[in-house]
Amino acid sequence: MNSRYKDDRIEGIWSNDNKVNLWQKTELAVIQARANLGIIDENIFDQIHKCLLHQPIDIAWWLAKEEEVKHDLNAFLEERLRFLPLELQPYFHNGMTSYDTEESAFLQMIFDSIFVFDRHVEVLCEVLKTLALRYRYTIMNGRTHGQEAQLQSFGKRCLTWLQSINLTSEYLIKARSTLRQSKLSGAIGNYGGLNHEVEKEALRILGFKPFYGATQIIPRELFAPIAQALCQLVLTLDKIAIDIRLGARSGRPIYQEPFGKKQKGSSVMPHKKNTISTEQMKGMARMAKSRFLSIQENIETWEERAIEQSCVERVEWPDLFHIAIHCLKTMIRVLGGLKVYPDNMLLEIEDSCGCYAAGEAKEFLRHRGAPFGLSTEDAYRIVQLSAFNAFEPEDWAQEMRNSPHISFKEADNDFFFLRPRKKKEQMSIKEIITRRILQVSPQLEANQECVDRWNNLLKTVFESHEAIIMWDTIFKPSYLLRGEETLYREILGE
Amino acid sequence: MNSRYKDDRIEGIWSNDNKVNLWQKTELAVIQARANLGIIDENIFDQIHKCLLHQPIDIAWWLAKEEEVKHDLNAFLEERLRFLPLELQPYFHNGMTSYDTEESAFLQMIFDSIFVFDRHVEVLCEVLKTLALRYRYTIMNGRTHGQEAQLQSFGKRCLTWLQSINLTSEYLIKARSTLRQSKLSGAIGNYGGLNHEVEKEALRILGFKPFYGATQIIPRELFAPIAQALCQLVLTLDKIAIDIRLGARSGRPIYQEPFGKKQKGSSVMPHKKNTISTEQMKGMARMAKSRFLSIQENIETWEERAIEQSCVERVEWPDLFHIAIHCLKTMIRVLGGLKVYPDNMLLEIEDSCGCYAAGEAKEFLRHRGAPFGLSTEDAYRIVQLSAFNAFEPEDWAQEMRNSPHISFKEADNDFFFLRPRKKKEQMSIKEIITRRILQVSPQLEANQECVDRWNNLLKTVFESHEAIIMWDTIFKPSYLLRGEETLYREILGE
Amino acid sequence: MNSRYKDDRIEGIWSNDNKVNLWQKTELAVIQARANLGIIDENIFDQIHKCLLHQPIDIAWWLAKEEEVKHDLNAFLEERLRFLPLELQPYFHNGMTSYDTEESAFLQMIFDSIFVFDRHVEVLCEVLKTLALRYRYTIMNGRTHGQEAQLQSFGKRCLTWLQSINLTSEYLIKARSTLRQSKLSGAIGNYGGLNHEVEKEALRILGFKPFYGATQIIPRELFAPIAQALCQLVLTLDKIAIDIRLGARSGRPIYQEPFGKKQKGSSVMPHKKNTISTEQMKGMARMAKSRFLSIQENIETWEERAIEQSCVERVEWPDLFHIAIHCLKTMIRVLGGLKVYPDNMLLEIEDSCGCYAAGEAKEFLRHRGAPFGLSTEDAYRIVQLSAFNAFEPEDWAQEMRNSPHISFKEADNDFFFLRPRKKKEQMSIKEIITRRILQVSPQLEANQECVDRWNNLLKTVFESHEAIIMWDTIFKPSYLLRGEETLYREILGE
Amino acid sequence: MNSRYKDDRIEGIWSNDNKVNLWQKTELAVIQARANLGIIDENIFDQIHKCLLHQPIDIAWWLAKEEEVKHDLNAFLEERLRFLPLELQPYFHNGMTSYDTEESAFLQMIFDSIFVFDRHVEVLCEVLKTLALRYRYTIMNGRTHGQEAQLQSFGKRCLTWLQSINLTSEYLIKARSTLRQSKLSGAIGNYGGLNHEVEKEALRILGFKPFYGATQIIPRELFAPIAQALCQLVLTLDKIAIDIRLGARSGRPIYQEPFGKKQKGSSVMPHKKNTISTEQMKGMARMAKSRFLSIQENIETWEERAIEQSCVERVEWPDLFHIAIHCLKTMIRVLGGLKVYPDNMLLEIEDSCGCYAAGEAKEFLRHRGAPFGLSTEDAYRIVQLSAFNAFEPEDWAQEMRNSPHISFKEADNDFFFLRPRKKKEQMSIKEIITRRILQVSPQLEANQECVDRWNNLLKTVFESHEAIIMWDTIFKPSYLLRGEETLYREILGE
Repeated sequence: MNSRYKDDRIEGIWSNDNKVNLWQKTELAVIQARANLGIIDENIFDQIHKCLLHQPIDIAWWLAKEEEVKHDLNAFLEERLRFLPLELQPYFHNGMTSYDTEESAFLQMIFDSIFVFDRHVEVLCEVLKTLALRYRYTIMNGRTHGQEAQLQSFGKRCLTWLQSINLTSEYLIKARSTLRQSKLSGAIGNYGGLNHEVEKEALRILGFKPFYGATQIIPRELFAPIAQALCQLVLTLDKIAIDIRLGARSGRPIYQEPFGKKQKGSSVMPHKKNTISTEQMKGMARMAKSRFLSIQENIETWEERAIEQSCVERVEWPDLFHIAIHCLKTMIRVLGGLKVYPDNMLLEIEDSCGCYAAGEAKEFLRHRGAPFGLSTEDAYRIVQLSAFNAFEPEDWAQEMRNSPHISFKEADNDFFFLRPRKKKEQMSIKEIITRRILQVSPQLEANQECVDRWNNLLKTVFESHEAIIMWDTIFKPSYLLRGEETLYREILGE
Repeated sequence: MNSRYKDDRIEGIWSNDNKVNLWQKTELAVIQARANLGIIDENIFDQIHKCLLHQPIDIAWWLAKEEEVKHDLNAFLEERLRFLPLELQPYFHNGMTSYDTEESAFLQMIFDSIFVFDRHVEVLCEVLKTLALRYRYTIMNGRTHGQEAQLQSFGKRCLTWLQSINLTSEYLIKARSTLRQSKLSGAIGNYGGLNHEVEKEALRILGFKPFYGATQIIPRELFAPIAQALCQLVLTLDKIAIDIRLGARSGRPIYQEPFGKKQKGSSVMPHKKNTISTEQMKGMARMAKSRFLSIQENIETWEERAIEQSCVERVEWPDLFHIAIHCLKTMIRVLGGLKVYPDNMLLEIEDSCGCYAAGEAKEFLRHRGAPFGLSTEDAYRIVQLSAFNAFEPEDWAQEMRNSPHISFKEADNDFFFLRPRKKKEQMSIKEIITRRILQVSPQLEANQECVDRWNNLLKTVFESHEAIIMWDTIFKPSYLLRGEETLYREILGE
Repeated sequence: MNSRYKDDRIEGIWSNDNKVNLWQKTELAVIQARANLGIIDENIFDQIHKCLLHQPIDIAWWLAKEEEVKHDLNAFLEERLRFLPLELQPYFHNGMTSYDTEESAFLQMIFDSIFVFDRHVEVLCEVLKTLALRYRYTIMNGRTHGQEAQLQSFGKRCLTWLQSINLTSEYLIKARSTLRQSKLSGAIGNYGGLNHEVEKEALRILGFKPFYGATQIIPRELFAPIAQALCQLVLTLDKIAIDIRLGARSGRPIYQEPFGKKQKGSSVMPHKKNTISTEQMKGMARMAKSRFLSIQENIETWEERAIEQSCVERVEWPDLFHIAIHCLKTMIRVLGGLKVYPDNMLLEIEDSCGCYAAGEAKEFLRHRGAPFGLSTEDAYRIVQLSAFNAFEPEDWAQEMRNSPHISFKEADNDFFFLRPRKKKEQMSIKEIITRRILQVSPQLEANQECVDRWNNLLKTVFESHEAIIMWDTIFKPSYLLRGEETLYREILGE
Repeated sequence: MNSRYKDDRIEGIWSNDNKVNLWQKTELAVIQARANLGIIDENIFDQIHKCLLHQPIDIAWWLAKEEEVKHDLNAFLEERLRFLPLELQPYFHNGMTSYDTEESAFLQMIFDSIFVFDRHVEVLCEVLKTLALRYRYTIMNGRTHGQEAQLQSFGKRCLTWLQSINLTSEYLIKARSTLRQSKLSGAIGNYGGLNHEVEKEALRILGFKPFYGATQIIPRELFAPIAQALCQLVLTLDKIAIDIRLGARSGRPIYQEPFGKKQKGSSVMPHKKNTISTEQMKGMARMAKSRFLSIQENIETWEERAIEQSCVERVEWPDLFHIAIHCLKTMIRVLGGLKVYPDNMLLEIEDSCGCYAAGEAKEFLRHRGAPFGLSTEDAYRIVQLSAFNAFEPEDWAQEMRNSPHISFKEADNDFFFLRPRKKKEQMSIKEIITRRILQVSPQLEANQECVDRWNNLLKTVFESHEAIIMWDTIFKPSYLLRGEETLYREILGE
C-alpha cells in the first residue's frame, strides 16, 4: 500500500517480524500442549522454549533460506532448528504441516487488525452522535432524487448515517466471532500427525477452538464475509461522503469539509474549497471492493488445498485494513471538523416555496375535500399544479430558455444587466392554494375548466377558519418534525 | 432480462429460433464448401439444402430431445437428420464437432447485436451534436470538485460528453473488427475432421476468416474486450447521467429531465420532478459491469476446453446488450428532451462573486505585480483572501452557525422572520481587489500586517488606467471563452 | 434469467402478481393498524378490505397506467382507488410514501426465496451425510497442490465439503435474521405521515419489527451480506464441483458424474463422459458473483435516497436465487448419483510407491534416528531422496525425455511398440529406506558421500525388530486414518 | 505491493522522484513552447531551465509542504519557485492547472511501464515458440472436459497458448496507441489559461498529440481498456498455468514445473513436487482483476472532474504492472524450464483403448456403413458402446464399487492383496469393432437385439480388406495429426 494511505499499527501487525513470532508461538503451544497432556516431558518444553526465546528470529537469514528452499515455513523451521540440540529437534514441528503453524498466526493477525479497526469505528460513532445531538433542531431539506422532499433536522440525517454504520458493525461482529476457530489437524486435516487432543489443548493455549472439517487449511468461506463487512463499512463511509459532497456544492453550501488556514484548493483557482477528502472516499471504496473480491475468490481451491490464496492473503488483507482505517480516520476528521451552515439550510427551505409540506398539503386536501367531492386524484393534482405554478419562470427567463444566446457578446450583455432585473417575488404553494389562484400550466395536462373546478373546490375547503389554522400548522417545521423524537429515543436512548 | 429493460431486436437475435437457424447455416456452408472444392458432388449439397430448408426446425422437438441426450447440438443434429435420407446423412456434420457449428453462430449473434447497438450510438451522438451547437454560447459555471471553477458554455460540456462516447466507440470498433474470425477445426482445433481448405472456404461463405490457434473453441480472450467496451459505454452514459442529476438538483436547477404532462413524481410528494431516468443509469451501470465480469471470467477454461462458459454466454451477452441498448434509448430520450435553463445558469454565475475569473485574476496579478515585488505566492493568497472575504457570512448567519437552534420552536420562529432579514449585497472579488479592501479572514492565516501590504501592492498595480481596463476584460465571458472555438473546430469540424 | 436455469417457485415469488398483492397486504396492514390503535373506525378497515379483496388487481391496467404516470406505485394506487368510494379514499395509502408500501413486500420476497433455497441446502446436506457414511472406510489419496499427499477416506472428503457448506449456511442464518426489520416511516424516514405507533403495529401484523434510522428506504447495507452469503454458497458448490471434475479426469477416474443411458457426450466423440454438470457450476459461480456485486453496489445512494437500486433489485435478486437454486439442484443430482470407484482409488494409492506415508516416515526417522545423530534435516532429505529414487524413469523413458520425437512416423513406431516394453516393477519408499538402497539422484543436491552416510544411518535405525514392525505399521491405512473418527464424531455426532 | 512480487523497474517508474521530474519536464515544455512560438523571449526559457535543472527537486521539502497546503502539485510549485527570481516566477506554471502538469507525466509512466511489460511478453512468446518447435511431434491426448478427446502434439498445445497471448497483445497494442494523447487545456479543458497553439507545441515536445474534449482531465475511458488488456494477459497466463497444473497431477504427470535441487515441497511431506508457481498465477489473476476493476471505476467523475481517481491511480496502476510482470517472469521461468515427459504422454494414450480415434471411427462407420443401412445414429451408438465395453470394470473392481469397505481393516487387507490381482488386458475400441464383439452394457440403453444388429452390420462393413487397412490408418497418430502442419505454417510461418 502506498505510504500515504498506510496505518502504522496495521503495518506492524502484518510485518514479517510479527508473523514469524506468531508462528513460533504456535509451535511452542503445540509442544506445551503435549507436555500438558503428559505426552512428553514438561522439561522438554521448557528447554525448547528457553532455546528459542533466547534467540530472536533472524529475518534476513530466514528470507535467504526461503530463496533456496522455495518454502517460507520450511525456511523458518531451518532457522529455528539451528538453535535446538539434535535431541530436541524431533519435538519441534512434530507431525505438523506448514499451515498448522501458519493458520492460527494468520487468524490472529486479522483479529488484531479488526481490533484496531473497531477502535476507529467507535470514535466515528461518537463523532456522529455528537453531531446528531448538536444539530437536533437544525432544520434542513431532506432530499430524495436530489430534489427537496420534506423537512428533517440535520441531526436526524446524522442518525441515519450512524445507523448505516451500526448495521454493518453488527455484521462484522457476527462475522468476527467465527475467527476464534483454528486448526492443527495435519496435512489434509485428518490428524495424520497431531491428534485431536493435542489440537484442542494447543488451540486453547492460543485462544482458539478447533474447526472441524478443515483440509490442509480452514476453508476460506470463513474469511470472505469478514472482508465483505470491512468493505461494506467503507462503502457506507463513501455514502456519507457523497452526502457531504452534495451539500458542499458551491452556490449555497449547507456544510463543508474543514479547510486548513494555509490550505490551497487548486493551483489555478485560488478561491476553491474542494471536497478532496470526501471525494477520496470514493476512490478508496473502489479499492476496498477490489480487495474484498480477491479475498472472496480465495474460496476456490483444489481438493485438500493448493497455494493460490497465499499471495492474495499477503497483499489484500493488509491493503484492506489500511484502506478501511484510512477512510475511518478521514471521516473522523471531516465529520469532527465539519463546517455546518444552518443559515443556508433555512434559506434553501425558504426558496422551496412551501413544497417541503406538499405531502401534508395533499393529505389535508383529500381528507378535508372528500366530503365536497374532491378525490384523491384531485388532491394530488392540485398540489402538483400549485408547485408548478410557484416555479413558473419569469418572462425574461422564459425567453432565454426559448432562444439561447447566439454569441458570447450577447451573453456578456445579458450578464451585465442581470442584476438590475428585478426578481419576481415567488409565491409559496401554501398561498397559491388558500388563495385558490391555481393557473393552467403549460407543463401539465389540466385545462382551464379543470383548474376552475379545483379553485372552486378549494374555496369550499377553506371556508372554515379552523381549516386555515390547521393549514398554517402543517407548514410549521415543529409540526412536521414532531416524529423525529422517536428516532432519538430508539437510537440514542434519549 | 426483466421485460422492462428488454429490446425486441436483441431478443430476436438471441432467440432459440435464430440460433438454430444460424447453426444450420454453418452446417450447410461446410457442405457447400466441400462441393465448391470438388470434394463432394455439387448435387449432394443441393439435395441436402432442399431437404432442410423445406422443413423448418421444430424447436419443441429439439428441446425435448435435448432433455434426453443432454446435449443441445446433438439434439439439433437428430432433429435435422430426420429429414435426410440415409445416404445423405454422412455428409451432414461430417467431421465436425459441436462448436464448429456453434462458434460462427455465436459470433454472428454478437456481431448483429453490435449493429443494433451502433445505430443507437449514432443517434445519441447526433443528439449531443445538436445540443452542442444549440448551446454554443450559453454560458455556465464549469465545476470541479462540485465547486464553481471557471466559465464554459453548456455546448462545450456537451462536446466533452460526446468525446467520452467517441473514445469508447473507437475501442469498440477496434475490438469488433476481431469478431470476423471463426473456426472450423474440429474437436481440439487441429483439423481432426475438417481440413483447413474446407474451413477457409466455409468460413468465407459465412463471412469469416479462420482464427489459427483455436482449441475446441476460439479462446475467450477474443470476446472480453468487446464486452468491456460495451460496458464502458454504459459507464460513460452513467457519467453523463450523473452530470444531469447534479445540474437538476432543486433550488436552482440548470437543466432537468423531460417530465410528462401526466407524470407523477412521487406518491406522497406531488411537487417532485425526480431524475428517475438518469438515476436508473447508475443501476444499469452496476449490471453492465457485472455482465462484463462474468464474460471476462470465461477466459479460464481447462486444456482444450470445458463447458463453463456456455451458460454464461447464454445469459450474459443478451443481458449486456439489453442493458446497453436500454441505456442508450433512455439517454437519447433524456438528452433529446432535456429542459435547459440558461437563466439559472446566469444567476448562478452572478452569485459566484466573480470567482469564475479567479484564475485569470491570479495570473493578472503576478504578471502585473512582479515588477512591484508581488510574488506568485502573494498573487495566489490575495485572490484567495478576496474570495473568502466575498463569502464571509452576515452576522445573523454567523450567529446561527455558532449556536444552532435548541428547539424546533426556535426554528419555527427564525424561519418565519427569515425573509424580512435584508440580504447584504455581496461584493465580487473583482471589486474587492481593485478597491483594495481586502480584510483579515478568520479562515485564513494572513494577519493584518500582511493584508495591509497586499492592499498597498494592489494600489500600485491598479494605478494605470490600462490595468483597470484589462482587469475588466478578464471578467467578461466572451474573453474567458475565447478558446472554445478550437474544440468546435477540432471535434465538429466547425 | 434464461429458462434453462429458472426455478418455478422463485419465478412465482418474484412475479408482478405476487408483488402487487404484497403491496396491497402492506396497505391493508397500515389501515388495520390504525383501526387497532383506535385512530380510525374498525368499520373503515372492514369496508376497504372487502372492496379490495373483492377485486383482484388488474395487472394489465396497472402496467398501462404506469406507462402514463411513469411511477409503478402511483399506478398501483390508481388501480386500487378505482374500487374505493370517495369517502374511503383518504384512508388508503394515507401519509405513506411509495417505499413504505414496497419495502416490506421486497423483504418478504427475499425471505420467501431464502426459504426455498434453504430446503435445497438441507437436501444437499443430507446427500453429503449419506455419502460420508457410505464411504467412511473407502480410502483414497488426499491431494494438495494436485499431488498425492496423505491417505484419507472419501467419506472424510465429503465431510469437509459438508462443513464448507455449513460454514456459509451459518452466515446466511445470521444475515437472514436481520431481514425481519422493515420501515413505515414516510418519505424521508422521520414519520412525516405515519407515526411510530402505527408503524410498529402495522409491521407487527406483517411479521416485522421497525428498523430505526431508515431514510426513504432501509439502507441497503442490510441486504448485501445476504447476497454475499448466497453467492458464497454457490462458490462452495463450485469448489466441490472442481473436486469432482479433478477426480473424473479420464485415465483412472475415481468418481464420475451420473451419465444417462441415452446421453451423448459429444457430437464428434462418442466415447466421452463429460463433466458437464460440474463444469456448469463454474459458469454459474461467475454469474452469482456478478449478481452479488450489483447488489452490493446498491449501498450507494444519494441523501435520503435515489432510485438507482430499483432496476438492480428487480433483476439481480431473482437471478441470484435462480442461479443458486439451479446449482443446488444440480449438485443434489450429481452427488446423489455420483459413481464412485474405490478400486481406482486403491490402484492410485498402490502406484504412489508408499509416498502417502512420507510424513510419518520422516517423523519416524527423526525420532528414531536422533539418538544416532540423524538430524531433522537428514530425515527430511532421506525421505525426499527415496521418493525421487522410486520415480526415476526407466531408460527408454529417459531417452524419450531427452530427445523428443522428430517426426510423427517415429511417434507411430514408438507407440506401436510401447506395450511390449516391460514396465519396470517400481519399488516403494518403504522398501528403499528399510533396504537402505538410496541412490544419488540427478534431481537433488545430495552427493554419493552424503547418500552413503544416510544409508549407514538407516542401517542403525532399522537394526531393531521393533523398529521394523513400527515401520510396517505406519504404512497401513488403518493406522494412518485413525484420527478421522474425531471428525465423524464432532461433525455427524457419530 | 508486497516486496515479493515487485519489479524494480516498475518501482522506479512510479517513484516520487520520477514523477516530480516528469512534472518539471511538462512545466519546462510549456515554457519552451511559448518561446518557440515567440510568445515569450527564448532567453526566459533558458534562464528558467538553468535555474531548475541546477537544483534537484527536494522530495522531503515537497512532502512536508504538501502536508501543509494539502495539495501535491501546489507544494511542488512552491518547491520549484524557491529557486526562481521574482521576475521569472510569472512564467512558471503560467495559466496552467495542476492536471495540465500531471496528465502527461501520468501517461508517460503508463507508457514506460508497458514498455517493460512488452519486453517480458516477447521473451515469453519466444519460450513458447521454442517449446512448440521442440515438441512438434510429441503426441499426447488433447483433453476436453478433462476427458481424453483426440490426439494432438504437445507443440500444438503450446501454439494455442501462444495464440491466446497474441490475441491479447493485439488488443494491448491497439489500446496503447491511444496513450499518445494528452492535454494542456486548463482547469476545465477550454483553454482558460493556455491556448491551443501552446498546447500543441508543448505536447509535441513531450511526444504527445492533443486530446480534444478533455475536462480538467482526459476522460478515464482512455485508460480502462489498457488496464483490461493487461489484466487479460494475466488471465491468459493463469489459463496456461492451469493446464500445467492439470498435466502435473501426480500419478502419471505429463509435465512438471522445474524443481530446484535444494527445494522442499512441504514441511510434512518430503516427496512433494508441488505446482506452487502455477498455482500462484491464480492468486495473481485474482489481484489483477481487482486492480483492473478499480481502474475501470475511475470513469465515473462529477462534471469537469473530482479527485476520486487519484488515490486509485497511485496504487492500482503500479500494482497492476507489478502483478503482470511478476506473472510473466514466473511463466518464463516455468515454461522455460518445464520438465516434459513424452513417455507418460504415450502411456496415457495407450491406456485410452483407442478412444482417441473415436471421432474418426464414427465417421468411418457412417460413410462405409450407409450403403448397408447403418445410420448416423447407429454409427454413433456403436462407437459409444465399444468404448463403454472397453472400460467395463473387472469383477473384483465392480464388487468394490457395489460394496464399499466397511472398516479400515478390510481396506488394509484389500490394499495388501491388490498387486497380485492380475489386471485384465484391456481391449481397444479398434479391436472391439473390427472383431464385432460389442456387448450389452448396463450403462447404456441398447439391448441385445440392437447389439446383435450392430455386430452384423459391422461384419458387412469390414468385409473388404481395403476397409481394414483404412481402419488401421485412422488409428495412426501420423494420420490423425496431419492437419497440424497448417497451424505451424500459419502461426510460425514454418
